[in-house]
Amino acid sequence: MGDKSLGKAVPWAFNLADDARGIPRKLAEGITTRVFVGEKVMLSVVRIAPHSTGTVHSHPEEQWGVLLEGECVRIQGGEEVKMRAGDFWHTPGNIPHGIRTGAIGAFVLDIFSPPREEYKKPGEGFGRTA
Amino acid sequence: MGDKSLGKAVPWAFNLADDARGIPRKLAEGITTRVFVGEKVMLSVVRIAPHSTGTVHSHPEEQWGVLLEGECVRIQGGEEVKMRAGDFWHTPGNIPHGIRTGAIGAFVLDIFSPPREEYKKPGEGFGRTA
Repeated sequence: MGDKSLGKAVPWAFNLADDARGIPRKLAEGITTRVFVGEKVMLSVVRIAPHSTGTVHSHPEEQWGVLLEGECVRIQGGEEVKMRAGDFWHTPGNIPHGIRTGAIGAFVLDIFSPPREEYKKPGEGFGRTA
Repeated sequence: MGDKSLGKAVPWAFNLADDARGIPRKLAEGITTRVFVGEKVMLSVVRIAPHSTGTVHSHPEEQWGVLLEGECVRIQGGEEVKMRAGDFWHTPGNIPHGIRTGAIGAFVLDIFSPPREEYKKPGEGFGRTA
């Protein structure tokens, strides 16, 4: 991960480490993302600084998350689970969830379907809560 | 990647390196996957051995791919693009696509929406072609 093979000549290829691509969004203090919008799927490439918290929220869209690098605690359905690189999780629609980091930050790929309307333009916050 | 923090106590968490989870499928010679099925999203964790080829095919479902480790050439819409770890790509429905590896294999996360019906049970092959 983190290999910067950027500058693809085709419009359909991207790189996770290329902060110049995607729709920027600040989800919370220390948590930023870049959003890539498809017809049925939206990807969100999230950087979480150490000691950051994404407050518990929910939305009707289905979500999957993949911890690409670092460590985090996933908060979901009242449970808290420590995640390490390579772990991934499924969050059905309307399930309350959040995330936090300790001394080590996290690099997370979030996957939404359908795409979240609020995330289709630059902005701040986690959007509406169900 | 490759960190095996397995055996989560919750049913909604998995690990990319845990070959015991997911629905197994042999896509082609040297290309195997494990499939995870959501309501609107299906994940496919694909291991591609060196010198393997996934023949060009298409399907109506939207697809995204993330090259987690290794190297590959993505074939799509008549173009061939060399991918390195961290690269990802978008494949709208019905766009012909394939993949091949050279001396280095690849570890790929494929994302489908809606879930591909053929991939909901163990089997072989890339499923129907549009």
